[in-house]
Amino acid sequence: MQKKQGKQSIVFACPPVITSTANIGGPMEGQGLLGDYFDHLMEDNLNNLSSWEKCESYMLERVIKTAIEKENNELSAIECVFAGDLLNQLMSTHFALRALSRPFLGLYGACSTMALSMLAGAMAVDGGFFQKVAGAASSHHDAAERQYRFPTELGVQRPPIAQWTVTGAGAAILSATGNGPGITAATVGKIVDLGIKDTNSLGPAMAPAAADTLWQHIQDTGRQPAYYDMIFTGDLGSVGKALVIEVMREKGLDIADNFEDCGCMIYREEQDAHAGASGCASSAVVFCGYIYQMLLQRKWRKILLIGTGSLHSPTSYQQKESIPCIAHAVAVEM
Amino acid sequence: MQKKQGKQSIVFACPPVITSTANIGGPMEGQGLLGDYFDHLMEDNLNNLSSWEKCESYMLERVIKTAIEKENNELSAIECVFAGDLLNQLMSTHFALRALSRPFLGLYGACSTMALSMLAGAMAVDGGFFQKVAGAASSHHDAAERQYRFPTELGVQRPPIAQWTVTGAGAAILSATGNGPGITAATVGKIVDLGIKDTNSLGPAMAPAAADTLWQHIQDTGRQPAYYDMIFTGDLGSVGKALVIEVMREKGLDIADNFEDCGCMIYREEQDAHAGASGCASSAVVFCGYIYQMLLQRKWRKILLIGTGSLHSPTSYQQKESIPCIAHAVAVEM
Repeated sequence: MQKKQGKQSIVFACPPVITSTANIGGPMEGQGLLGDYFDHLMEDNLNNLSSWEKCESYMLERVIKTAIEKENNELSAIECVFAGDLLNQLMSTHFALRALSRPFLGLYGACSTMALSMLAGAMAVDGGFFQKVAGAASSHHDAAERQYRFPTELGVQRPPIAQWTVTGAGAAILSATGNGPGITAATVGKIVDLGIKDTNSLGPAMAPAAADTLWQHIQDTGRQPAYYDMIFTGDLGSVGKALVIEVMREKGLDIADNFEDCGCMIYREEQDAHAGASGCASSAVVFCGYIYQMLLQRKWRKILLIGTGSLHSPTSYQQKESIPCIAHAVAVEM
Repeated sequence: MQKKQGKQSIVFACPPVITSTANIGGPMEGQGLLGDYFDHLMEDNLNNLSSWEKCESYMLERVIKTAIEKENNELSAIECVFAGDLLNQLMSTHFALRALSRPFLGLYGACSTMALSMLAGAMAVDGGFFQKVAGAASSHHDAAERQYRFPTELGVQRPPIAQWTVTGAGAAILSATGNGPGITAATVGKIVDLGIKDTNSLGPAMAPAAADTLWQHIQDTGRQPAYYDMIFTGDLGSVGKALVIEVMREKGLDIADNFEDCGCMIYREEQDAHAGASGCASSAVVFCGYIYQMLLQRKWRKILLIGTGSLHSPTSYQQKESIPCIAHAVAVEM
């Protein structure tokens, strides 16, 4: 059987099953629209730890442990972990994995990491290398602000187009056998950069990459947008989301009715997150909580998750470079 | 057929073939011991570009293009690129991949990236997802110094145990069919951290991870060290290399005769690199040049490349954390 489809896509021969997921959030996420769809909520963004980075490590470690416990399994049953985060040198992921002591492949896809980890993990399971792996991603609002917008003490006013980095983490257990929705297909993204240089406009910067991957997914697999009950992007926010709808409309496809952005699903209007949520945890907490629950409840049977990542660094910004972006898609079907 | 062996290893069913490689170095690398084994050498560390980071992007782009040209193929034949570097948010890799516009999975394994990219790429090929992929890694001395040891203008004297980050890049084309040595097996590392906090002692910090992965590879596959003509680690330098030999001797295995560290193979004594070379490019330029040539010439038929990565970040160092390390191994046989 030909697993590769078209130019950038894969159809899995034996769709890896998402046998369990877990997520965690901070107080702001708990007060948001999906507050009932978290396994764990922290009372503050430090959780009695000595740094935001340690708190992020704790979250990633916690969701991987919780996800495997929820399927009544031991940590040792996870044969390999695919994970990443937003911090320089994946700091949070590495300290979490040091504590977990499991075989580990580090990924960097910025905010596309949750989809990327499931894509890479599904290849490892469908390829016959492992029976059970974990895909996971995290972000932490304060750790990310310190890294990308230091010194935050300046108190620069956030423009309305800016988004709010989610404090949270999500983990999914992918198994060769078992019950749950399966990862049936995936599309590997390529880097798209239309020249946006404003790091407050990450949603608009990422929108062309999301549209490119969605369009390629349709071309490669022949699945029209209506094939999916819902199509989700990771963290485009309200401005980026509208742009994707418009780009697809220009290509003759109407996705307005079955397309949503995880970044628009987390915070309430009055929480002042401006254009919505962002960060690796945006799609991670929504997929590993609400979306997975809705799949289990058969509210949706087929969804496409398009993780969206802005791949700039503070150094590239200081060197006046534009923002390279990427989007990876995984199709999850019940 | 069972592809997974033991706890952390894989034996590939249809070993992906390394059909081509390419490498590039800077002037110091060209003047070193392996100066004759480079495809390209730059006259200086900027190569007429405006930043060290852009120069690193150029190197990564160049080796991927050269590797595919050397097998008389087009860039479009590469179905997916697996790559990474040392910089925050994989800056060099992302700008290189923006230029190449190929489907791309970003990896972070610090200096273990070359082995990691071949491991992940081999899984994608053997798993039947792609026919031809590229694995690649880069580092740049000045870009790395700016990031890890800023302000370098202070001119702090380097201790004798310190290593020198290689300016260079390497790429390997992995194909489902073709001529060349094959990737027959791999061992996925787990994070090992014995508490070293001195970021000048990266070789000693990484040595336990290298020994752990080598030991696990032997346990999992039943291949004794003598199975391989040569075992290479990535960038332990002279101090770390001696520690691995000692740790293995304590476990009852003598590897002194068929073990070398890529970090000890690049610079001449008089080049003042102290304990040796380091960086993603250490193993990348040695594997994609000298080692690959020796395999093609049948000087060696079976080698094990153990990529070694120090996963600390400047932030974790400032927070007084010890250094988490990892090592991934790939077995390459002619």
